[in-house]
Amino acid sequence: MENELFSYTIEATDATTHARAGVFKTAHGDIPTPIFMPVGTKATVKGVWADQLKAAGAKIILANTYHLSQRPGADLIARLGGLHNFEKWDGPILTDSGGFQVFSLAEHMKLSDDGITFRSVDYDGAHTTWTPEKNMEIQQLLGADICMQLDVCPPFPASREKVKRAVELSSAWAARCKAAHTKKDQALFGIVQGGMHLDLRRQSIEALEKIGGFPGYGIGGFSVGEDHETMFETLSPFCEKFMPKEKPRYLMGVGNPTTLLRAVASGIDMFDCVLPTRTARMGTAFSSQGRINLKHAKYEEDSGVLDENCTCPVCTTGYSKAYLHHLEKQKEMLGAEMLSVHNIHYLLNLMREAREAIIAGSYQEFLTAFLVSLAANDF
Amino acid sequence: MENELFSYTIEATDATTHARAGVFKTAHGDIPTPIFMPVGTKATVKGVWADQLKAAGAKIILANTYHLSQRPGADLIARLGGLHNFEKWDGPILTDSGGFQVFSLAEHMKLSDDGITFRSVDYDGAHTTWTPEKNMEIQQLLGADICMQLDVCPPFPASREKVKRAVELSSAWAARCKAAHTKKDQALFGIVQGGMHLDLRRQSIEALEKIGGFPGYGIGGFSVGEDHETMFETLSPFCEKFMPKEKPRYLMGVGNPTTLLRAVASGIDMFDCVLPTRTARMGTAFSSQGRINLKHAKYEEDSGVLDENCTCPVCTTGYSKAYLHHLEKQKEMLGAEMLSVHNIHYLLNLMREAREAIIAGSYQEFLTAFLVSLAANDF
Repeated sequence: MENELFSYTIEATDATTHARAGVFKTAHGDIPTPIFMPVGTKATVKGVWADQLKAAGAKIILANTYHLSQRPGADLIARLGGLHNFEKWDGPILTDSGGFQVFSLAEHMKLSDDGITFRSVDYDGAHTTWTPEKNMEIQQLLGADICMQLDVCPPFPASREKVKRAVELSSAWAARCKAAHTKKDQALFGIVQGGMHLDLRRQSIEALEKIGGFPGYGIGGFSVGEDHETMFETLSPFCEKFMPKEKPRYLMGVGNPTTLLRAVASGIDMFDCVLPTRTARMGTAFSSQGRINLKHAKYEEDSGVLDENCTCPVCTTGYSKAYLHHLEKQKEMLGAEMLSVHNIHYLLNLMREAREAIIAGSYQEFLTAFLVSLAANDF
Repeated sequence: MENELFSYTIEATDATTHARAGVFKTAHGDIPTPIFMPVGTKATVKGVWADQLKAAGAKIILANTYHLSQRPGADLIARLGGLHNFEKWDGPILTDSGGFQVFSLAEHMKLSDDGITFRSVDYDGAHTTWTPEKNMEIQQLLGADICMQLDVCPPFPASREKVKRAVELSSAWAARCKAAHTKKDQALFGIVQGGMHLDLRRQSIEALEKIGGFPGYGIGGFSVGEDHETMFETLSPFCEKFMPKEKPRYLMGVGNPTTLLRAVASGIDMFDCVLPTRTARMGTAFSSQGRINLKHAKYEEDSGVLDENCTCPVCTTGYSKAYLHHLEKQKEMLGAEMLSVHNIHYLLNLMREAREAIIAGSYQEFLTAFLVSLAANDF
């Protein structure tokens, strides 16, 4: 990759677990891994200002190709200087392909070997066809630093036949995406499918490597409804045995703190999820003591902060759980805003601590201490 | 007032208009006048962080006694250290009496010489009676730097008889509030009523001064449905002829930029209004070119900022009207957040510029230039 504008360097590997600490370089800055990437679906991390994301230590944010292609449209964003200029984020951005959202349209979506035809019923209901080439065109217009191949996301549970078919089609589309992708300052990641079948996962990554490989790999088709144990039964041996060591591994759609840390132990480097902002809008905060539902009456007169150990502006300013409870009960916007900032800060900080532990060679102890402290909580 | 913890000093008076520049000192800081005070009804300026208010130059914010007495309750706020600690605002705070909100309960409210009995139908529907003494007790528990007397707010239009009765009862309640008010680091302002009747306005202020006067005066009963010309026909001569010169004058509930500047010319020192945040949540921004409704399709591809002259973080970061249009159309929280910060910044800046013009002796020119630039707009 030495001729590219991006590269991945592994700085440390943990002695006991499979955790790694690395840096993915992009034209808009370095991304230390392991990392959590806040999701800005519609070119905004819901409720949070860019300077608040920066202050929380966000190094890369996501945007969603499906939603942005519907409104305001990729052409318009390109004419306005691309996503970085549109949303005024000068750090790295990753766009997912939007495939996951299109497959979620269910009966409004039709899959063929050539692509996906769908009706955007959550927007104007227009019919659109995405070939791999068309999807690349859109993501290149959006202009993120990392884009994702268009892949096939089977529902869960799906028959082995269906999962196998998804792997084969995703592999074929990976080759077409790679051929269509020309933007030199944008890294194109391939996506591994294969559900809970280790052999199909292996088949998927081998097919991607066979066509010359990608500068990074998304791992899709997990966290789609299966329990965590089921996921790790496939994910851990898959990463250990079959994933190329020198490429970043991005477990798509996972944001639960415990799952994040366990996946890091399996060798995952990158994560994204709407969880921190979505739970915030429902009135829930992450904390080192477990989740806190601020709507609960027991916080009515609680003068304590969300988390004594937290360095986010909500906790360091000293806002009480009683104040946040009041904001939640009165449906004040500031409640969701504060919890969003806190939750994002919490996950970013957790990943920073994980990275430091990997470098210090003490990741297993770090993970164990975390799991023990949360053992009594539904986290 | 030399024995008090607050004082008002006039620093400059305009040569041509009746505008004044002054400073009201409180235990939590100095308030330069003329000033606009952002409204934080339920102990939060909707959608805006305290550090964003500070950065916009807010020197004092409001909170509402009616709403806070309902939820979370004044006792609870007192136990949590008062409003300053509850909402983490270390600058001056003003609480209005809540009388205006209680009178808005209309058929759920009953007025007697002794007080107001009401049913809080927008909360739990409980029956409450506010005497002037009870209202003072609540405002002292909230602990703002400035509190307002309980007054009688007649509907508009009201018969002269009704307005006269409101003046008499407000005067009597002013005396009772003054007698009941004991918090030494909290200034109690009297409120002038009298509708559009200059003689009743005069009767009102004379009654307040007769009982020893107050460190400042609210002017209520304007901006209640009458047009601006009608208001100024009474307000201007009233301020000029009958208001004591050495006390700050607070025109309650006015936030329209043009009206603010004209009222400053009439000698008003303080303003509050929910307008900047309410219009923001409806997708509208103030600007030196008039109001901008970001939902309008004409902004879909507008790469310009809201106001080239604005120093708020939205404009200086360079967020385009196209981006704000997108946020509005997609009902993204960040749209209302950004417009709220911008609008508050706009009004605070307008008052700073007004103050500078007064001190420079050029307020008339400043006002004229503003009115001319907006002549073609519905501002």
